[in-house]
Amino acid sequence: MSSIKLRWGLIGCGKISHDFGKALDKAEHPHEIVACAASSLDRAQKFVKEHFPNAKAYGSYEELFNDPLVDVVYIGTHNEAHCPWVVKAIEAGKHVVCEKPFGTCAGEVRATIEKTKGRKTFLMEAFWSRFFPSWRYIRNIVDKKEWGEPRVVQANFGYPHEDELRSLERAEGPLTMYGLYVVMMAHYVYKRKPEKVSVIGATDKKFGCDEWATIALEYGDDKRAVLYYDSRTWLPQNAFVSFDKGHIQIPQYFWCPEKIVRWEGKTWYDNEEHRREIEFPLNDNRFFNYNHSSGLRYEADHAYEQIQKGHTESEFHPLSDTLEIVETLDEIRRQLGVHYPHDDKFL
Amino acid sequence: MSSIKLRWGLIGCGKISHDFGKALDKAEHPHEIVACAASSLDRAQKFVKEHFPNAKAYGSYEELFNDPLVDVVYIGTHNEAHCPWVVKAIEAGKHVVCEKPFGTCAGEVRATIEKTKGRKTFLMEAFWSRFFPSWRYIRNIVDKKEWGEPRVVQANFGYPHEDELRSLERAEGPLTMYGLYVVMMAHYVYKRKPEKVSVIGATDKKFGCDEWATIALEYGDDKRAVLYYDSRTWLPQNAFVSFDKGHIQIPQYFWCPEKIVRWEGKTWYDNEEHRREIEFPLNDNRFFNYNHSSGLRYEADHAYEQIQKGHTESEFHPLSDTLEIVETLDEIRRQLGVHYPHDDKFL
Repeated sequence: MSSIKLRWGLIGCGKISHDFGKALDKAEHPHEIVACAASSLDRAQKFVKEHFPNAKAYGSYEELFNDPLVDVVYIGTHNEAHCPWVVKAIEAGKHVVCEKPFGTCAGEVRATIEKTKGRKTFLMEAFWSRFFPSWRYIRNIVDKKEWGEPRVVQANFGYPHEDELRSLERAEGPLTMYGLYVVMMAHYVYKRKPEKVSVIGATDKKFGCDEWATIALEYGDDKRAVLYYDSRTWLPQNAFVSFDKGHIQIPQYFWCPEKIVRWEGKTWYDNEEHRREIEFPLNDNRFFNYNHSSGLRYEADHAYEQIQKGHTESEFHPLSDTLEIVETLDEIRRQLGVHYPHDDKFL
Repeated sequence: MSSIKLRWGLIGCGKISHDFGKALDKAEHPHEIVACAASSLDRAQKFVKEHFPNAKAYGSYEELFNDPLVDVVYIGTHNEAHCPWVVKAIEAGKHVVCEKPFGTCAGEVRATIEKTKGRKTFLMEAFWSRFFPSWRYIRNIVDKKEWGEPRVVQANFGYPHEDELRSLERAEGPLTMYGLYVVMMAHYVYKRKPEKVSVIGATDKKFGCDEWATIALEYGDDKRAVLYYDSRTWLPQNAFVSFDKGHIQIPQYFWCPEKIVRWEGKTWYDNEEHRREIEFPLNDNRFFNYNHSSGLRYEADHAYEQIQKGHTESEFHPLSDTLEIVETLDEIRRQLGVHYPHDDKFL
């Protein structure tokens, strides 16, 4: 553990900023929330008073960017506001960790990468799942080819989703809320874009958003992902990775799991003889808005380490990964017939 | 329990006939294997001696059909031979239980239903899963609308599948080995043909068979099934049914389960508070070729009851269900580009 504190400024005083800020208390490295900014000073003051009494409250994001006490900005706003604030925070010389999805569409992500080129500060999408010890364990099996090649990634994500979270203008909908997790899971295992994307699904007549989809991603060499998300129904929230000589089940909640189950060898799933459970407990029972949010600390610690090393991008979740994932999401939307107004702006 | 024995003649002396015959010992009603026929007398004699010493051995199926001791014929041959032998057994005045898939394609099933019209004897496809107490329990929830409407059926089935079981000429491949189970699961819940069938998958270059597929079946009124089968990789072999106000998980092996897990109410899957496991033990640890084959007794007991009632078709698995399932399988093959020589014969 280092002794120098990393000083965070949160922009957006909503549920995810709350959870991110609270998770830092359990991090391995020293972090501190020094400032919070909302679209109104009232809102920021209320948030600070309630949750982070030692932090400064700002009624505009620009003021927070100008605060010399802030080392790194965490962007927890609505999707369509992510990239514009990334650019402004970077221009103000801050390190930046931006919530997923980093941008509304591939065009915007590409433009933002272009605009922030040559910077001296760190910039990363906050895809928190990737940094969980359980997920690192899986990546290790992939990297060491311990069980040969991965062949199939399966992931399911679904529950009845509030209508307020469906908006084409805000580039928000089921695909960006949890569809992106199943796509990211596949990218995490195969570490590249699929050669072929095939989608079956439906859109919502009222909002024009996606509703549900089953997605097959093919990577060549008999490697594929079969993914499903659904915004109207409860589903098992789990994932499965099948290798040549073993498989891993990631139980609910697969995107932030405290446990995985592994079977070694060419064996039936559920063969008790080869079954091994591995626990990665969060050891945190405080209130969070979202499930297992205490695990947001893993990405914060990763950002800490990368900033300390002087990196401008994450070695583990570089912007090229962010772009590849959003390119796949765009293709899924294209096949579903879901168009964001932002798509046209970044052609 | 009745006291009159139902006397079975098995045609095809392979693994499935063995398992079916052995399962009868644990049935509720009295059954007896009185005859077994194979394509050669040697084979039949060996099978009888080893497994059913009190049964008669025949070197041709016709001889078995002519044996007045046989009440009911169980057809356990290769797929492409099912329908022709169904017709001959019916013409000989026997009751018939025929392994799934009943026919190679919808055309053949339709022709066979036509040819066997007006018969006095019972005829049913041996879709054993439907008769398991665990499956009956699920159907009861559907029928009583206990949890409102079913909305999503999910099912997975996959393991590395022997090449000897891939043959277009024999109308045999992954889809007919286990793809049909996931399709039948959806039919079982919705009790009708889907309005829309959408398939993503791949075929095998060497044999021309299907390899894997993810299948979305849409039934209108926000009801769907999302199914996946794979003949190259180990998968979880489970299913899930999501209702308006509850859900059921059917763990491995979903097609012949000894246990289901139910969650009552509008709740997250895995909410321990609402979780209830229900056991339906087979209480049989003898050797079988296939998993849980002791459960074949449930379909045998169903056949017993239907025959005793004088029915010519099952009330619970009528030939119209058989036809609807094979029509869906045909559409899946069409979209995958898998053509059986039999398709042309029954246009």
